[in-house]
Amino acid sequence: MADVSVRPSQEAVERELERVAFDSAGLICGIAQQYDTGEVLMVAWLSREALKETLLTGQVCYYSRSRQSLWRKGETSGQMQRLVEARLDCDGDAVLLLVDQTGVACHTGRRSCFYRRFAKDGLETISDPVIEPALLYGSPQ
Amino acid sequence: MADVSVRPSQEAVERELERVAFDSAGLICGIAQQYDTGEVLMVAWLSREALKETLLTGQVCYYSRSRQSLWRKGETSGQMQRLVEARLDCDGDAVLLLVDQTGVACHTGRRSCFYRRFAKDGLETISDPVIEPALLYGSPQ
Repeated sequence: MADVSVRPSQEAVERELERVAFDSAGLICGIAQQYDTGEVLMVAWLSREALKETLLTGQVCYYSRSRQSLWRKGETSGQMQRLVEARLDCDGDAVLLLVDQTGVACHTGRRSCFYRRFAKDGLETISDPVIEPALLYGSPQ
Repeated sequence: MADVSVRPSQEAVERELERVAFDSAGLICGIAQQYDTGEVLMVAWLSREALKETLLTGQVCYYSRSRQSLWRKGETSGQMQRLVEARLDCDGDAVLLLVDQTGVACHTGRRSCFYRRFAKDGLETISDPVIEPALLYGSPQ
């Protein structure tokens, strides 16, 4: 597949990171959207370092609030996100990551983390796992 | 237009709100996506009360962190968001709002708040206002 991604220069990244409004914990909200289908895959957080790495390498890297460390998406599971384009919102505190998702985004083995909808009688599951979660994290390959 | 929205019952809303993981400030991250085109419009926050009102009325209501009050989207500007479907993510701390946006979502008069992309030489504006911002908030009609 042709690489259609937009990759900013290191100088541009350094400069533009000054316009990002990281919150009091030093984080910005990231939304991953499959670039060609428009499916919203997940929401996670990025530190300044995570956003910089994402923009420079073209591989999405979040910040794990629970582990308090960089979270290179797919490093363990193999389910990586290649960055096609990153967009900043009007007040600079959210970033939309247009990505090409390998496999699935969700740790449950589903394509998207948003697999439950508020239906008439309560939350309803609308998609099934396409990969067995144990295969993502469990036993050795 | 036919109303294709999914509206949960009051009893279901009360019950399922217990499964929502509001953060230490009592908020959950909300992503508004135009239901038919897939365009991500904006990111904002919802309190328990805001989410409840959104689910029950079918009109999106956020919580304004700056004003510390409910923010009924479009109340001032007229640019309302009709809820078509709400989806909860796997860990319950983000909600995807599939909406039908009247006019524009962004206070700059643009359809989406994500109108700047990280391009090679830095942030680049990729869409123009379709409504004059002064007409959204300024002078009387």
